[in-house]
Amino acid sequence: MASTVEGGDTALLPEFPRGPLDAYRARASFSWKELALFTEGEDMLRFKKTIFSALENDPLFARSPGADLSLEKYRELNFLRCRRIFEYDFLSVEDMFKSPLKVLTLIQCLGMYDSSLAAKYLIHSLVFGSAIYSSGSERHLTYIQKIFRMEIFGCFALTELSHGSNTKAIRTTAHYDPATEEFIIHSPDFEAAKFWVGNMGKTATHAVVFAKLYVPGDQCHGLHPFIVQIRDPKTLLPMPGVMVGDIGKKLGQNGLDNGFAMFHKVRVPRQSLLNRMGDVTPEGTYVSSFKDVRQHFGATLGSLSWSRVSIVSLAILNLKLAVAIALRFSATRRQFGPTEEEEIPVLEYPMQQWRLLPYLAAIYALDHFSKSLFLDLMELQQGLASGDRSARQAELGREIHALASASKPLASWTTQQGIQECREACGGHGYLAMNRLGVLRDDNDPNCTYEGDNNILLQQTSNYLLGLLAHQVQDGACFRSPLKSVDFLDAYPGILDQKFEVSSVADCLDSAVALAAYKWLVCYLLRETYQKLNQEKRSGSSDFEARNKCQVSHGRPLALAFVELTVVQRFHEHVHQPCVPPSLRAVLGRLSALYALWSLSRHAALLYRAERRRSCPGRRDRSS
Amino acid sequence: MASTVEGGDTALLPEFPRGPLDAYRARASFSWKELALFTEGEDMLRFKKTIFSALENDPLFARSPGADLSLEKYRELNFLRCRRIFEYDFLSVEDMFKSPLKVLTLIQCLGMYDSSLAAKYLIHSLVFGSAIYSSGSERHLTYIQKIFRMEIFGCFALTELSHGSNTKAIRTTAHYDPATEEFIIHSPDFEAAKFWVGNMGKTATHAVVFAKLYVPGDQCHGLHPFIVQIRDPKTLLPMPGVMVGDIGKKLGQNGLDNGFAMFHKVRVPRQSLLNRMGDVTPEGTYVSSFKDVRQHFGATLGSLSWSRVSIVSLAILNLKLAVAIALRFSATRRQFGPTEEEEIPVLEYPMQQWRLLPYLAAIYALDHFSKSLFLDLMELQQGLASGDRSARQAELGREIHALASASKPLASWTTQQGIQECREACGGHGYLAMNRLGVLRDDNDPNCTYEGDNNILLQQTSNYLLGLLAHQVQDGACFRSPLKSVDFLDAYPGILDQKFEVSSVADCLDSAVALAAYKWLVCYLLRETYQKLNQEKRSGSSDFEARNKCQVSHGRPLALAFVELTVVQRFHEHVHQPCVPPSLRAVLGRLSALYALWSLSRHAALLYRAERRRSCPGRRDRSS
Repeated sequence: MASTVEGGDTALLPEFPRGPLDAYRARASFSWKELALFTEGEDMLRFKKTIFSALENDPLFARSPGADLSLEKYRELNFLRCRRIFEYDFLSVEDMFKSPLKVLTLIQCLGMYDSSLAAKYLIHSLVFGSAIYSSGSERHLTYIQKIFRMEIFGCFALTELSHGSNTKAIRTTAHYDPATEEFIIHSPDFEAAKFWVGNMGKTATHAVVFAKLYVPGDQCHGLHPFIVQIRDPKTLLPMPGVMVGDIGKKLGQNGLDNGFAMFHKVRVPRQSLLNRMGDVTPEGTYVSSFKDVRQHFGATLGSLSWSRVSIVSLAILNLKLAVAIALRFSATRRQFGPTEEEEIPVLEYPMQQWRLLPYLAAIYALDHFSKSLFLDLMELQQGLASGDRSARQAELGREIHALASASKPLASWTTQQGIQECREACGGHGYLAMNRLGVLRDDNDPNCTYEGDNNILLQQTSNYLLGLLAHQVQDGACFRSPLKSVDFLDAYPGILDQKFEVSSVADCLDSAVALAAYKWLVCYLLRETYQKLNQEKRSGSSDFEARNKCQVSHGRPLALAFVELTVVQRFHEHVHQPCVPPSLRAVLGRLSALYALWSLSRHAALLYRAERRRSCPGRRDRSS
Repeated sequence: MASTVEGGDTALLPEFPRGPLDAYRARASFSWKELALFTEGEDMLRFKKTIFSALENDPLFARSPGADLSLEKYRELNFLRCRRIFEYDFLSVEDMFKSPLKVLTLIQCLGMYDSSLAAKYLIHSLVFGSAIYSSGSERHLTYIQKIFRMEIFGCFALTELSHGSNTKAIRTTAHYDPATEEFIIHSPDFEAAKFWVGNMGKTATHAVVFAKLYVPGDQCHGLHPFIVQIRDPKTLLPMPGVMVGDIGKKLGQNGLDNGFAMFHKVRVPRQSLLNRMGDVTPEGTYVSSFKDVRQHFGATLGSLSWSRVSIVSLAILNLKLAVAIALRFSATRRQFGPTEEEEIPVLEYPMQQWRLLPYLAAIYALDHFSKSLFLDLMELQQGLASGDRSARQAELGREIHALASASKPLASWTTQQGIQECREACGGHGYLAMNRLGVLRDDNDPNCTYEGDNNILLQQTSNYLLGLLAHQVQDGACFRSPLKSVDFLDAYPGILDQKFEVSSVADCLDSAVALAAYKWLVCYLLRETYQKLNQEKRSGSSDFEARNKCQVSHGRPLALAFVELTVVQRFHEHVHQPCVPPSLRAVLGRLSALYALWSLSRHAALLYRAERRRSCPGRRDRSS
């Protein structure tokens, strides 16, 4: 029997237990249940309740507060929990396709319970699974069934000890031997060991291994994915020729067994090649269905975005948990007051509000963005699956890649800084392990690093924008993208001439004001970056040098401002839809304005400097 | 036999082992040995070598990389190591007085080995010890001997579960009973339990307990320190009426046993009162040698500064370790390059330099500041010990309090952000526990919190400056302080009229330029804060409300800019002394300029806004 939204204990959204927060809750200007329904939708709330109820009632998921869990035990427990999630079968493969947001919701629920569990599940079912699904062909479908029955357990082995970001420099090799119709997977030395691979440390039986493909005559066809068995599923002992192990304790996510592997001339059948992009005939001839390198590259970019878009969502849920802890603490902790006798909750201090409330707003804006980007990515994926090789599909791949490459840094850094602020805002109590802020911070931290270091990823986004401007300048092309995130740039000379005058504080409390300023800022930064880049090149810098010289002062703020603008824009539109319940409009509008103004304020120095240059066009700061 | 500075293995500063860093080291423009000698002095280098050699050769200090040490074991090991430090007797009580900087050096060496060890040693010997020494009298000297023989083990119990920052609201009581000549120490409820007390969890036998002193007739004389035995030194079992225990796992510093204690009518002899500030006669009459509350308060402030000044130093050593790790990694890690074949060390990227090098400069500037402030504090302490009750002594107490209250936040935040940047700048490898960046970050974190939340402490400093300005405005007083950190404010109207024009980038590379801008900024912020505060009061705000309303936008940046100015000023003077070896002048000058400009650049928006207001004096930003 489905539970009702309102009502008793079995309600979808039961009342909070009575307690010291009642006074603040009673003062709310809106119904939190209405807000939850609007934000999540009843269907998703029900799905979450199903998951959380199952975990709450299962002793395997019981927490042992204060227990000093060893690394070994924690990893074992996390594996058992991951297996149990598959047994619960919350989401069938069919449901995944029908309601893709549920995939994200499931991952989020697992992440709210424990990041290590979400990561373990995600790597096996989505990263490993979708690598096979999207890079393989019919002959690999049998693996997909085995994944969901957990007959095999998977990992994704791209990074090597000495190469993470620069995937072109990956050095594992796969030589084809026509005599036996096998590939020989080999790690030339320990620097080429696969490293950091989640699930590889203890539990994975199979890996998608990226290696340089060589056909007879020593001709290299670049990086390709192979499915390689690394352990015996019964004993978990390594397969012959495979040296595999755990890389040890990390700062966080210690339930996840990150591992390394070296391959000593390991032979795998020809069919192990995941052959969507290219294949090798039994005789040893390389064949590829992609004629166009750019098209091939666009298709690859799309698949890289999956993890990044998931990370946006996983980061934000850590921030949700941290901000909830810190705000509740602040509403009950009393310290000092107008008189010596009367102490007030620390939440009443403007300082505490300034520290915490912008992160509350950031959660709403970024959470909405992550869902919308996830749906955009689904569109891209469906195009890929249906064999769409149109220019629009390639452009969509590039646009999503640009947005994912900047929103992953934005979300992971906002969360990193937000959790740290929450930790400090809770004083000593925030430093006690049982209050969870440390675990959240440590578990969020790799979001800044994996799938590309944040600072390096931002370069992808600034390069995308610079490429569009070059196209416009050189070929007179319009700024147009499938998701319209860059369309406003078409009017950039006009936008740069605009001046903003607001006549009262109240006027600023509409996110449209910050939005206009953001558009101006992105246009300004894009033009400045373009000019600076060309100036560097004219001074004799190579393209590589010129980009490196421009990134700190220009490319980086450009990429961040662009993605912040997109987040603000999407949330602004979302909260100004006609379907927003009237009783929620005020609070959502305030959240939108607060996030927009707070984000914009971090660019204040740039805005002032730009204004100064405009008012004295002959004079340029010496620093530039 | 004393070792030589240069030379073989036994040298004071032996050569680095050959390795991949050689190439960079060979390119240095200065001799690192010369820099070390200038920065530390030969005497201190020898002292450090003595300590590190002892630890290196003692199996008790051997690390077990990868070992999964339980909380219990780690706490036990840390206690054994702390005891061993006393056995080594690196520094006698006499040496401490003769060469006070050696105290700081010893703490730093222990901190470089393990923050928990430094904290445990510091709390017992300095915090507990100096509380007895400076708050007690002749009758308590016997405790000092017992401390250094480790016959007792101590802790400092001020904070309660519900009150940290607001010490006036501490609720533990000490009622005097003339019938037995005893005080009755009592915790009214669990919210008044002593909490967070370092060493109290497992190992302390005695505590300095702060409680409200009541004499017969229920007259309260405010907070006073008492020495209370909490455990039997032989069995470590709690004393009757004392409920004491460990508060559990923290985000870091887990070798330190933080604890809680509740007292149920625990009787202690009258002599347990540390009676420097006030005493109770056997009959129950309260007597105090301090007539003047302000004088009493000034004396107390001085003793509060000890821990804060130590924290500045402890924070910076964490940053030293982190930056050394990150820079060495960056010099050897190669990723991407001008061509596909040639990869370059990541340190060559302007982005990586921009991320890391300012923190290297910050280490030198803040380390110098922390030593100089420590020596200032010694001067204050000597005045206290010699019974100096002059106005200068009181002013010195206030000035040091203001500097310590802002430099603790500056150093702990700079370190917090710096370690995080180092962690991220090392990519995935920075996330591996064995690379130590996580431990450094976690162990540094409480520096932002204990001895006062950073944001709250900054208010002490802004209040100090506002008080001086009020004194000047109302009484025509000069800005003068014993350490001269505020003397420049005397010329503040003139400074505010100055304009800065630098004609080349090279001109900025003298820290004098940033220093002048900083002076302008502090004058500007002080005037603005003062005006805003008065405006709030005129609009009907109470003093409490007005200060809270001004702190985020005015008081906080004022306090930070003031302490940054002082740090920059002291380092600027230090590196421009005539005694600086000529071969080091260039590198020290660059470090000074880099730290100054980098710090100043974080106030860029404020500087632009202020300039704009000056050029359009009639127009004020709506935001103000």
